[in-house]
This record gives sequence, structure tokens and C-alpha cells, in this order.
Amino acid sequence: MSSTAGQVIRCKAAVAWEAGKPLVMEEVEVAPPQKMEVRLKILFTSLCHTDVYFWEAKGQTPLFPRIFGHEAGGIVESIGEGVTDLQPGDHVLPVFTGECKECRHCKSTESNMCDLLRINTDRGDAPLEKVCVLSCGISTGLGATLNVARPTKGSTVAIFGLGAVGLAAAEGARISGASRIIGVDLNPNRFKDAKKFGVTEFVNPKDHDKPIQEVLAEMTDGGVDRSVECTGNVNAMISAFECVHDGWGVAVLVGVPNKDDVFKTHPVNLLNERTLKGTFFGNYKPRSDIPSVVEKYMNKELELELDKFITHQIGFSEINKAFELMLRGEGLRCIINMET
Amino acid sequence: MSSTAGQVIRCKAAVAWEAGKPLVMEEVEVAPPQKMEVRLKILFTSLCHTDVYFWEAKGQTPLFPRIFGHEAGGIVESIGEGVTDLQPGDHVLPVFTGECKECRHCKSTESNMCDLLRINTDRGDAPLEKVCVLSCGISTGLGATLNVARPTKGSTVAIFGLGAVGLAAAEGARISGASRIIGVDLNPNRFKDAKKFGVTEFVNPKDHDKPIQEVLAEMTDGGVDRSVECTGNVNAMISAFECVHDGWGVAVLVGVPNKDDVFKTHPVNLLNERTLKGTFFGNYKPRSDIPSVVEKYMNKELELELDKFITHQIGFSEINKAFELMLRGEGLRCIINMET
Repeated sequence: MSSTAGQVIRCKAAVAWEAGKPLVMEEVEVAPPQKMEVRLKILFTSLCHTDVYFWEAKGQTPLFPRIFGHEAGGIVESIGEGVTDLQPGDHVLPVFTGECKECRHCKSTESNMCDLLRINTDRGDAPLEKVCVLSCGISTGLGATLNVARPTKGSTVAIFGLGAVGLAAAEGARISGASRIIGVDLNPNRFKDAKKFGVTEFVNPKDHDKPIQEVLAEMTDGGVDRSVECTGNVNAMISAFECVHDGWGVAVLVGVPNKDDVFKTHPVNLLNERTLKGTFFGNYKPRSDIPSVVEKYMNKELELELDKFITHQIGFSEINKAFELMLRGEGLRCIINMET
Repeated sequence: MSSTAGQVIRCKAAVAWEAGKPLVMEEVEVAPPQKMEVRLKILFTSLCHTDVYFWEAKGQTPLFPRIFGHEAGGIVESIGEGVTDLQPGDHVLPVFTGECKECRHCKSTESNMCDLLRINTDRGDAPLEKVCVLSCGISTGLGATLNVARPTKGSTVAIFGLGAVGLAAAEGARISGASRIIGVDLNPNRFKDAKKFGVTEFVNPKDHDKPIQEVLAEMTDGGVDRSVECTGNVNAMISAFECVHDGWGVAVLVGVPNKDDVFKTHPVNLLNERTLKGTFFGNYKPRSDIPSVVEKYMNKELELELDKFITHQIGFSEINKAFELMLRGEGLRCIINMET
């Protein structure tokens, strides 16, 4: 047990006091872990777009002050009463969703939406400065393709939104052996990076006068086999659905929509044997599945190239730079080293 | 070859001359089969709601005169040039969709939406006066559950619309071992018949002030495992989707919507891991799959009870009665014997 176990400790934190305003480096007090809780020392964080979404607080109830950083890697500092499957020193990836293993969702092989939303853990010695990105965005995109869209070898996959989640979805399509991976994004600069993730063609809706689903249908003799939507824009969701081929096409929604968005389509698009699904954290169960994703990555069984996602690395004191990069759409994942 | 082969023949037909007006019994001329065509002698027809839909011609371009009767059973009278897999005397179920076995749909294991829409055949000696109902409505409902919704043993299934298609969907749920089959219909008289098809509970939206998806969620601790929509009403489609459980629920749309209908839902309903699919002819490939459905029915491998669907039997001359029964929502399938 560390000497700080059971004590209130003082930690550095980047605190958001107001929507859209730079974070302020402060010292905060952290209570000791309560029953069934653990206290983690976060070593690396990578900024996720969801952090920016809640920091900007557009169209939401603003909730400040708050401390961001859910896509992370760290070690267990101390544990609360009743915790038996973790001990101080364990390397962990905190995950924004949980797995109690008791509720109907956890017992279902089809769902990962645990009713209790408990924290999740991973045991292993994997390089935390890389695998921390698996705790949210990369797993979300990768799982959307590998677990939900499930393209077959030789198929055509459209990816809407070429940020980190979209490129992880593209990586999933590449690993699945898709022969055409069509990236759709409003930012033409994205295509250069996207090629590294197996994206073979690029379509910018701004370059076309007609709906992008029609452009894609023409490019692919009637529609793509699978599409994965990673923008959260409701119109992109509709396009992603309507661009899949009738008879067998599957569209998977990943991006988080606004509160008042409405998904609209003509029901005949469904009756023509298209499938529309959504996913949450790539349908991975955090405790059951993520450790094995990390393990497969370490053993090179999964041809996932995490390095490609990590475009920036900065020290904790420079955290506001990570927000600026994300807002400008530059790079993919910026890893924040909490100890520098 | 019959003596009429290659000749124009004169046949009895019930001709619709105007939307919604009684059919008129007439003699019509039927040309000999052209290349790759066959000419059938129809022995039994069962009236399908799609016949009534086109006969009423509401919200469509009216197309008259026309002769209805696509859900049928008959024998091959003569064949055209190039037809090798059928011969005069073969017992057949004509199907409204086809299977060329060459196009991308026919080659896909996931689709049955043949690009060429050729006519389909069935070889066998099954009782045509019963199995004719497999050529459209019953296969559509049964396949929607068995091939698309695929409920597991012990699951809860909601069926929207308790006409012949909906009850065939319920029959599929019963065969799959569903423990609760909840029928939803505006007509309370439907429930009595529905019990014979395994429907265990009945919900009438007219009896509730709140959206029926909320009523179903309360009845089932969060939602049903599967739903099958067999009305074609777009609001029922939305309810059928929104009443499935998050995490694993699957909704299957079967009913044919109006031309201007829009399916609307909040995208979060999808992101919470619900699946929305549509189906066409129950995802059965007509030539590859329907003969084996008939065979399984004959061998009693499929616990399908076709007799229950056949509530009326009339002679061809009384065909307008069949339309009246369908319009009044009485009975399920009315078999029309073409030879009386």
C-alpha cells in the first residue's frame, strides 16, 4: 500500500472554469477511494473530441468547474473497501463506461451497455503512452467496424468523418480486408493522413451539388456494402444510411448527435433490406473485451497500428495546446504526459 | 405439350376496371409464352392485402384495367423458348419477385432482391389449395421473424398488425420459442384469432393515452427483444422501432408505407444499440428457399400450421366477396378456387 492510502491527497489538475475558456492549472484535493472505488494516478491522457464537446458546452447545460480527461492510462494508487480484482500498482485504462457482469446487459452477448456504468480496468504491461487511446476513441471506431458493421473481405466501406474515431473505423475496414475504403470529410487536408489508414478514395461533399449518398451510389454501382458514421452530424447519419446498397447494406452510427436532432428517412429505404444500427464504445464490453484487444495489439495478432494515431505529444502544463489542435482539426490524437 | 401450346387462349378473368369498384368476370385472351416465359393455369388464389392496396389505388397512379392475384398456386400450361427447368404439368407457386441466380443480389447470401425480378417456381405435389398462401403473405411474415428478427428461445417479441402477415410473423416467433408474443392492433377482435398463433398478450393503442412504445417498455422491463411491423403505417413503424430494448433490440419493418411517409426517430435511439432493418418477402430467395419451406411444411419439420390462416374458401365467381372480407378486416386468408 502506498503511504498515501486512506488519505486526502493533493494533485495537479487542469480545471475548466468556463465554457470554451483555457483550462487553469491548479492543485486540487482528491478524497480517498470509498467502498468499491479505486484512486488512480493518471500518467497519460489523450484528448478526445468528447472532452472538447463538453468544454464548449454548446446546446448543453454547462457544468463547471470540471476536470476532463477520460481517455487515459494510469496506475492504481490505492483501493477502497471491497475491491478485490485490483491492487495498488496495477496498470489500468479507465473507461467511460463499465461492466458490472451482473445486469441483463452484461449477461447479454449482444450488449455492452452496463446498467451500473462501473469503472473498468485492464491488467497488463502494455505501453500506457500508446494504449491509453484504446480507452475511448480508437476502440469506439475500431469496434464499430469489427464488431458491428463486420465488412467481409473485398467489400466496399464508406467512412464519414476522418478524425481519430473515423480513421480507427477505417483501420477496422483495412484489417477486415475491405478492398475499397471511401473517406467522406469536409476537410480536404484529412485525406493525406487517411491514406495511412487504408482509405483508398476521398469524397468531399463540398465538391458536389447532389446529395453525397447519390455520389457514393454512382461510384459503387448502387451503394457501399457498409458505412460507418463518425461525425455526429445528423445529415451525415442520413447520408451514411442511404448510401448503403439495398439487399445487404449495413450502416453503423457512432457519432454523438445533438439533443434535438431527428433522423429522417423514407421507410422504403429500410424495406429494401438495408440495416441501420448504432454502437456505443464499439460494442466492446470494457472488462471482458478491452484487455484482449490490448493483448492482441501487443502480440501483433491485431494489425492495429496505434502509432499512426498519435500525432502529437505534449506535457501536462501545455494542455491548452491540445484543445487548440483539436479545434483546428489538426492531427489525430495528442498524448498528454501528466508527469512533465 | 398441351394442345393449346403456342396458341392464343381464352381465359376467365376477374378484371378491375376502376379503383375500388367490383371486379367484372370476363373472358380475356392470353398470348403464348415468349422466350424464357411460361404460361400458368392458376388453380387457387388467395387474396393478399397488396391486391386490395392496388385496387383501391389511394395515393398511387391508378393503373386500370388490371387483373389481380399474385398469391397463387397453379400448373404450367406451356413453356416458351429457352425454358429448361420447367415443363407442362409442373405444380408451381408464382411469386411476385424472382431469382435469376446471376445478379449480385442472387449471389449474395444476404439479399433476395434479384435485379431481374424473374418469375419463380416450385416443384412438388404439395396441396396447392393450402400452400398457395406461401407464395406471398405467409412467407413474408414468417421469414421476417425466422430470417431477419431471429428471436432466441425465451425472448419477447412484439408484432404490430395482426392480419395474415403479422400472424405469420407471430407463428415464426412461436416456432422460435419466444416466451412472450405481444400483439398490437387497433382492432380488438383480432386477439381471439391471434391466440391460435401463439400471441400471448394483446395491446390496443386506443386503450392508452401514452405512446405505445412506452406501454410496451413498461410491460417488458425496458423493451421487447424483437419487434416486427406488419401494418405499413409509418407511426407504427416508429413505435415498433422505439419499443425494442436498448443494447440488443432488433426491429424489422415489413409493411409497405405510403409514398410520402417519413420515418423519424432521435438518433440516440440507434446509438443505444438498437437495430432497425426492413425485409422484402421475408428475405426468402424464391427459387432457392421457398421449395424447401414447402418441403419442410409437408414433412412437418416446420411446425407451421397453414390451415389456421385459411379462414374462407370461395369460388372464382364470388371473388368480390374476398375483397369485402379483406376490407372489413374479417378473417385472414380467403382461398379462391379458380375452377368453381
